[in-house]
Amino acid sequence: MSPVVQEFRPSIDELAELIVGFAANVQPGQVVSVLSEPGKEAVTRAVAESAYRRGARFVDVWYFDYYVKRARLAHAAENTLEYVPPWYGERLLALGREQAARIALAGLAAPHALDGLDPARAGRDRLPILKELVTVVNERSTNWTAAPAPTGPWAELVHPELEPEAAYARLWDEIVHVCRLDEPDPATAWRTRMRELVATAERLTARRFDALHFEGPGTDLTIGLLPSSSWQAAEFTRADGLRHLVNVPSEEVFTTPDPERVDGFVRATLPLEYVGSIIRGIEVRFEAGRAVSIEAESGAGVLRTAAAGDEGASRLGEVALVDRRGRVGPLGTIFYDTLLDENAASHIALGQAYTFAVADSDKRRVNESHIHIDFMIGSDDVAVTGLTRDCGRVPVLYGGEWQV
Amino acid sequence: MSPVVQEFRPSIDELAELIVGFAANVQPGQVVSVLSEPGKEAVTRAVAESAYRRGARFVDVWYFDYYVKRARLAHAAENTLEYVPPWYGERLLALGREQAARIALAGLAAPHALDGLDPARAGRDRLPILKELVTVVNERSTNWTAAPAPTGPWAELVHPELEPEAAYARLWDEIVHVCRLDEPDPATAWRTRMRELVATAERLTARRFDALHFEGPGTDLTIGLLPSSSWQAAEFTRADGLRHLVNVPSEEVFTTPDPERVDGFVRATLPLEYVGSIIRGIEVRFEAGRAVSIEAESGAGVLRTAAAGDEGASRLGEVALVDRRGRVGPLGTIFYDTLLDENAASHIALGQAYTFAVADSDKRRVNESHIHIDFMIGSDDVAVTGLTRDCGRVPVLYGGEWQV
Repeated sequence: MSPVVQEFRPSIDELAELIVGFAANVQPGQVVSVLSEPGKEAVTRAVAESAYRRGARFVDVWYFDYYVKRARLAHAAENTLEYVPPWYGERLLALGREQAARIALAGLAAPHALDGLDPARAGRDRLPILKELVTVVNERSTNWTAAPAPTGPWAELVHPELEPEAAYARLWDEIVHVCRLDEPDPATAWRTRMRELVATAERLTARRFDALHFEGPGTDLTIGLLPSSSWQAAEFTRADGLRHLVNVPSEEVFTTPDPERVDGFVRATLPLEYVGSIIRGIEVRFEAGRAVSIEAESGAGVLRTAAAGDEGASRLGEVALVDRRGRVGPLGTIFYDTLLDENAASHIALGQAYTFAVADSDKRRVNESHIHIDFMIGSDDVAVTGLTRDCGRVPVLYGGEWQV
Repeated sequence: MSPVVQEFRPSIDELAELIVGFAANVQPGQVVSVLSEPGKEAVTRAVAESAYRRGARFVDVWYFDYYVKRARLAHAAENTLEYVPPWYGERLLALGREQAARIALAGLAAPHALDGLDPARAGRDRLPILKELVTVVNERSTNWTAAPAPTGPWAELVHPELEPEAAYARLWDEIVHVCRLDEPDPATAWRTRMRELVATAERLTARRFDALHFEGPGTDLTIGLLPSSSWQAAEFTRADGLRHLVNVPSEEVFTTPDPERVDGFVRATLPLEYVGSIIRGIEVRFEAGRAVSIEAESGAGVLRTAAAGDEGASRLGEVALVDRRGRVGPLGTIFYDTLLDENAASHIALGQAYTFAVADSDKRRVNESHIHIDFMIGSDDVAVTGLTRDCGRVPVLYGGEWQV
């Protein structure tokens, strides 16, 4: 263990305890899967230790190595890039059958691993994301969460103006803050924040808007909602009722839109990191639900290839609203990691929808895809207005403040 | 990449090329599994790159973390320690069905991970070894190899008298030497050495000894052979004929003994590292094939627990002879890693036998077990004598020199 890691020892243990004991809510006897990367050993091992102390039966760590992925993208035959060994998906489905706990450690351990590669080739290899994830999430068989694991390379990407050690210390400070580890009892602080978000979600659901309208610099986008679209916070329950918080941090409320009724154009307000590649300056035009044009300052090919992967990949599966009362946005930090950045700003996602956010009557209408890619479109300069079925316009989120 | 790793860049690439191109003999279109550890990233990534350059379809790396294993052994419930997620074994069997290449990177990245734990508990968790390995090896469906990946912690264990950087440099020098990477063409050097070992194996087979007798300090052991026991070198072929070298380095010839006819006592001549634990000063007494007593200066519980795991775990599945003409023994270095140390000295293995080393007529007589644990019993002070069916005694290996 390096001196730097020892210095952050209390934070590592507190983060692991929050992840295992509160967010994933690991139960005695459970199998616990951990998706990690080389470079995240300290948090990974603390998570494993916390899980075993809570009576886990087995902790199954998958260290996914983006430099091995780089070797593939650089050298493998074009027609093999979408191959995934069948045992990867079978493991995930088995975790579902086991009613396992699933923990993903976010943050970048190797932010430059895919630099300079062809984005179109990069977009064809979506690992470590698996197509079976959609099934396991929507059947609600696992108690899962995603939480950040700070690393030196990630810190240097986020804070290039600082010396490496200072950048790493700053990133840890920020992670401690956004994860509410600086509260006397982080779990209680999260329960309080979740009550606020659930209340907001319930107010939004009660409005039964027909659509949302996003308007700001480079953005004029209308997103239709389904009749039964209900707003959700990130506090989920397994099908059997076990509570878990799926993102730490989480500051969003979200719902499942109508994949046939999205029109206009949108400019991303933050860069997007997707399976190892960074995409900057995204601009998308939608017509009748479909993304008909995807442009970006850099990395557009990654997103275009992913969005061309199946019929639903170019349609929306999520719309989420984030106010300025959360802890991520006010930092003004670009984390280059969706888990953090999507909780700084309202966002939409191409691809698979959460089916549990609509009633049975609408389940056949929600978007289906093997992808789910969130990108950020909100800021204080983007106004969000609710459109009612009788053509009324209701302010929803202006200047980052709730109007409902 | 650290400066230290850059310094060893040529060796890393040459080692990877030897592993992938010659030893595992990776073929275009193959899936390649790599068993590695956090801390062995540089060699792992070089192996992946070499495999993809040779046309591999996919490289599936499993970084097994001994510190996660430590958390389990320290905290998990006693009755869960033998649990292995079923998808671990299913993956290995699927690699067999795929006729995949399998590469294991030996050497210790975390030599102190299990320090201070209860050896009896440690012996119950054999991961990363899987019980399905016996099936896959004996069906000869995969082209596989094991080769060392030097790490700093391993170097400090092997050369505690040196400063860490000097120890790491020394270990690399030794690995380069024993892997014959200091030869103009390492693959040609290995072909030459394998021809010698195969010729020795053929001479031994032609003698059709009834038994071998090991005699030296603390050792007086007779190991019966089966009528069709044939001696082998580590150059294997897949069932379909694809050649692969299963150990780099390899200096041994070995065969499958009679598990019912082993009698006497034996003192190990080197310490043994087994799934994370180090066992020193092993002394075993055999009666009618069974290890009836297992003692050690330290770590005996690990070996005793493993040997009690099933009926065949206390009987022999291998006897191997190593002369002093190899490159490992003359170094006089204890590597605390079976791959290296077993090629320094003659050895025997508790547990599963290689079924292909006997004819069909003897296959039902070979030892079966879920374990295969080699430990070293040879030295220049241990004389190996062949016993013929007519009660003759034939010198085989005296002072480390072949007598046959």
